[in-house]
Amino acid sequence: MRYKVTVSYQGSAYQGWQTQHKNNSVQEEIEAVLKIIHKKDVEIVASGRTDAKVHALGQVFHFDTQLDIDAQGIKNALNALLSKRIRIKKVEQVNDDFHARFHAVSKRYDYYISNDMENPFIVDYMGIEEYPLDISLMCDCAQLFFGTHDFTSFTSARIDERKSRVKTITRIEVKQEDNAIHLIFEGNGFLRYMVRMLAQTLIEGGKQRVTKEEVKSMLDSKCKHACKYKADPRGLYLVSVTY
Amino acid sequence: MRYKVTVSYQGSAYQGWQTQHKNNSVQEEIEAVLKIIHKKDVEIVASGRTDAKVHALGQVFHFDTQLDIDAQGIKNALNALLSKRIRIKKVEQVNDDFHARFHAVSKRYDYYISNDMENPFIVDYMGIEEYPLDISLMCDCAQLFFGTHDFTSFTSARIDERKSRVKTITRIEVKQEDNAIHLIFEGNGFLRYMVRMLAQTLIEGGKQRVTKEEVKSMLDSKCKHACKYKADPRGLYLVSVTY
Repeated sequence: MRYKVTVSYQGSAYQGWQTQHKNNSVQEEIEAVLKIIHKKDVEIVASGRTDAKVHALGQVFHFDTQLDIDAQGIKNALNALLSKRIRIKKVEQVNDDFHARFHAVSKRYDYYISNDMENPFIVDYMGIEEYPLDISLMCDCAQLFFGTHDFTSFTSARIDERKSRVKTITRIEVKQEDNAIHLIFEGNGFLRYMVRMLAQTLIEGGKQRVTKEEVKSMLDSKCKHACKYKADPRGLYLVSVTY
Repeated sequence: MRYKVTVSYQGSAYQGWQTQHKNNSVQEEIEAVLKIIHKKDVEIVASGRTDAKVHALGQVFHFDTQLDIDAQGIKNALNALLSKRIRIKKVEQVNDDFHARFHAVSKRYDYYISNDMENPFIVDYMGIEEYPLDISLMCDCAQLFFGTHDFTSFTSARIDERKSRVKTITRIEVKQEDNAIHLIFEGNGFLRYMVRMLAQTLIEGGKQRVTKEEVKSMLDSKCKHACKYKADPRGLYLVSVTY
């Protein structure tokens, strides 16, 4: 029996969804709890990884079980045993061919930026910028990313040449809210570090440290050394995965 | 020249205001930054300590300086060099006889309790209770603490017999807010662990695990073993110190 699980986590205390050495990762903690419930190893497969300190409102993973336990029972058992920093939102029985990574059709990531230099309570939850950003300049840059592009310039140096770096961004928003600037990125997939690199590029645009033309050159160059920007992971949230 | 400094901190990453071994404490970090500015050791004196993981909105300390630097300059220098988890709110020049501990006439502590078991983003900021609390029972217990009492029953086992355990609580509030129960304690002074012990006693009252009569016996017994309750430090905030 296969279950699809939607999970929210406060990423500050974790080395990310998955770490190389499985050291203090969200996946590791969930698998440890599933092992207690199943009395054997249970592998979980997520929609994708998140970096250290990144949060999730709606990460999705699947796993298989032979136990006679219904969706609500799994949710209750997991939440009872997991740290309060990891909360199971929803558990649904799915067909055995459902795959949390391969079947994801889109993902949404949000990023929050604050200018509040005097509030110590937001440091785990937002990127903090000393000076105000020009929203209109940020929008000018954001517009370049909308649609289908080869995002080679906005990913980490380690590139798997067999995989396409062409992705489609179907939604970009730059919103001034009461206490923060709120960025939304939605698309059919994101490369490693891509959201953080796009977010910081918009921030640099808002600070007039980079022009729209320079951002366009970066994107067009399809060069893995083109963009040196990467936003603080603490402002980033994996909001939802759509299937 | 003596300066009075009001400071806010997110306590999650610290072992408290001051630790026995000065290991990762808020005081240690501020003194380290003052040492950089002064090129010599500078001692700071706070209104009192806060426990590990407790937050502050308005802790107060004083220190002396021979440097020719005004209040705004000190604030800017400290905030530039301190972690973003510690933010200086205000710096004021005061008379050389001002003392942050001895001259404090009252302190306010707030405590937040949430029943939201599905939100991983509040764990550093609130005490989390699985079941709803009865506000009216909490108020019944809180009423007992109002006014002047010997609070020996609500402090840690290590008691300095030379010091009075008689304190006056001038304000207690138990408020149901949208997402939390909000407790307010204001008084002329609080013993070690006293606010956390009072808060957890109210929580246990709200859960019907202890009756008003039992709480009254606890208070009247003036016995350091009478109260076994102590609330999670993560829900506690030192809000302000009045001089």
